[in-house]
Amino acid sequence: MHSNLPLKHLFDLPEGVIYLDGNSLGPLPRAVPDRLNQMVRDEWAGKLIRGWNDAGWMEQPRRVGDMVGALIGAAKGSVMMGDTLSIKVYQGLAAGLAMRPDRRVILSDNGNFPTDLYMAKGLIELLDRGYELRLVDPADIKGAINEDVAVVMLTQVGYGTGRTHEMASITKAAHRAGAVMLWDLAHSAGALPVDIAGSNAEIAVGCTYKYLNGGPGAPAFIYVRPDLIETIQPALSGWLGHDAPFAFDLDYRPAHSIDRMRVGTPPVLQLTALETALEVWSGLDMKEVRARSIQLSELFIEEVETRCPTLKLNSPRDPENRGSQVSFAFPHGYAAMRALIDRGVIGDFRAPDVMRFGITPLYLDEDDIIRAAEILEKIIREDLWQEPKYQIRSAVT
Amino acid sequence: MHSNLPLKHLFDLPEGVIYLDGNSLGPLPRAVPDRLNQMVRDEWAGKLIRGWNDAGWMEQPRRVGDMVGALIGAAKGSVMMGDTLSIKVYQGLAAGLAMRPDRRVILSDNGNFPTDLYMAKGLIELLDRGYELRLVDPADIKGAINEDVAVVMLTQVGYGTGRTHEMASITKAAHRAGAVMLWDLAHSAGALPVDIAGSNAEIAVGCTYKYLNGGPGAPAFIYVRPDLIETIQPALSGWLGHDAPFAFDLDYRPAHSIDRMRVGTPPVLQLTALETALEVWSGLDMKEVRARSIQLSELFIEEVETRCPTLKLNSPRDPENRGSQVSFAFPHGYAAMRALIDRGVIGDFRAPDVMRFGITPLYLDEDDIIRAAEILEKIIREDLWQEPKYQIRSAVT
Repeated sequence: MHSNLPLKHLFDLPEGVIYLDGNSLGPLPRAVPDRLNQMVRDEWAGKLIRGWNDAGWMEQPRRVGDMVGALIGAAKGSVMMGDTLSIKVYQGLAAGLAMRPDRRVILSDNGNFPTDLYMAKGLIELLDRGYELRLVDPADIKGAINEDVAVVMLTQVGYGTGRTHEMASITKAAHRAGAVMLWDLAHSAGALPVDIAGSNAEIAVGCTYKYLNGGPGAPAFIYVRPDLIETIQPALSGWLGHDAPFAFDLDYRPAHSIDRMRVGTPPVLQLTALETALEVWSGLDMKEVRARSIQLSELFIEEVETRCPTLKLNSPRDPENRGSQVSFAFPHGYAAMRALIDRGVIGDFRAPDVMRFGITPLYLDEDDIIRAAEILEKIIREDLWQEPKYQIRSAVT
Repeated sequence: MHSNLPLKHLFDLPEGVIYLDGNSLGPLPRAVPDRLNQMVRDEWAGKLIRGWNDAGWMEQPRRVGDMVGALIGAAKGSVMMGDTLSIKVYQGLAAGLAMRPDRRVILSDNGNFPTDLYMAKGLIELLDRGYELRLVDPADIKGAINEDVAVVMLTQVGYGTGRTHEMASITKAAHRAGAVMLWDLAHSAGALPVDIAGSNAEIAVGCTYKYLNGGPGAPAFIYVRPDLIETIQPALSGWLGHDAPFAFDLDYRPAHSIDRMRVGTPPVLQLTALETALEVWSGLDMKEVRARSIQLSELFIEEVETRCPTLKLNSPRDPENRGSQVSFAFPHGYAAMRALIDRGVIGDFRAPDVMRFGITPLYLDEDDIIRAAEILEKIIREDLWQEPKYQIRSAVT
């Protein structure tokens, strides 16, 4: 069944490292450096300004958008790359609110990634006309959807626990109440099969430096349901979203395609790295990736629970309710994660006490999982995390 | 006086090309490919998620911001890199409007780059409380500043004609009327000496892929006057602008530094290329760059006017009122520019009839200028632009 996986040979992973943080920053696909170097030397240096036409830079955000779209169940021409996820959340939310001008509630959950909530708050403050960001527990979302809600804004897979929201039924509930549905697929794209078109959601956004391995600062994506593309208000109405950007009209007239969600000049270097990274997915079946992710995650949970009884599973036990990450709560989680990283097992830590492990079957196998659990066991059993050097907090963990 | 210039050996320019489009996309600085390759292999592949701390990625937008700041007369800690210029215009404008909540006019000129106007229009539509974008001729700006104006938003050097606005006196006029001043330095940074701190303007923005040679899609910058940094409303309130991003608070609390103008995850590949490109400026005096830019521009105007009397100068004749570009109007400008590019002289075209030439003394000398004029003369004199292949419009020109 999983004949293709893992594809370790496609990634440049340091010798001896077991990388369980692909949910935060994916590793380097081996094809990227040469392609990037070629782009810089042949296209930037060689074509100069002509690269926009002759090297396909101008079309790249849409071309790469279609590649991402193929991984989230989106039709061609419905996904655009650009900016950061924070900006795309803002753009999608502003566009969603404009679709329901008489409503004043943005509904989300308190397990959502903070930047989604911060961007919503910034927008609410700017709009200054009585909008409310209403937060409930993730489990209480469906019950909280009512006819006051303009936009339901949720991240499908929670960054802390990895718990999933049921996309189809929540979207249906939102629509029954007349609300717009906005999905953040940051921890979904490349992690599990997503059928964004089938969900009927109006808008989705996501990032590409996690499971899609686009590199640090890879651009975000935004999806718009095809029937809305001609009417959605881009809010961030930049020149490359104009119907004729090189006419240099003084008036803004949005493009009649997903191009209207473009804003400024696309980051060609980042997009080139991402485009190359996405080639890893060619010929892969996301169902197979998901099946392997569940196998490896179940194995990791079993190993850690057996070896480290003081760690408490902080993710849903049922794999159907979990993304491609597993987290454990441990009061000394910060120090324990430092000790683990020091021994070549790289996961990450999220305040207050969560040790997070991304399970990415593209470059992990059973041996990695068992070895990681063994090392974790040694750290916990021998209290190795107590070393003073592991107590010092750094900017990013 | 200009012993340092040109620095052709620092740039990878194609053999036989005379590049007069550094005002649109700067050429590749020779040091970039190796540094980028090293970043990708040693930092992304080698450090993985630890790159955020151990390779200095998290601090990079501020570190590079200080490098740009040194070129525009900004104090350390007052410039932040990120996003695109369109996004930074939006952020700066939203922040500026919030400083004058009782006023409803954004004043700009009809020679401003369209995306600045489009972003303003998108913001106005979103705010939906009676804001007006008032456009006047560039020459009429000072007279149009009055006490209705919340923000005066201008690009110092016009993208079409290269004409400059007088930064200090316009800022003074804006402040006398109680308005906030927002400068777009897209065609200024790296082109001429800018004293943004001395101008006393509240906010400035700009891009880095033109005269700063950061590469296609290099990130933008935003400057905030130091006394306002603690109170400015970032509007685009993303997690990396939070006072403690890794506390993952549900509430947004902006950083007490220029960090509050950060939004999402920074584009590390683009920033690394840019950071390396900016090293070209070390030891260069912007006054010297400006003096050489004027010498070469004067020579180019003289040569073109002598050789091609049908081309009409579309830039101010007085070099003091002109940035580092020269443009000529010619009814067949599009085709003539194609013919010119075909012969290795790369400028660009802006609708309806403008042939634009960026004069960048970092990699141009007198011989280049005269040779470019000679080739242009041949095209015009022999009507070479009439060839059918030069009539076909492409996406970017």
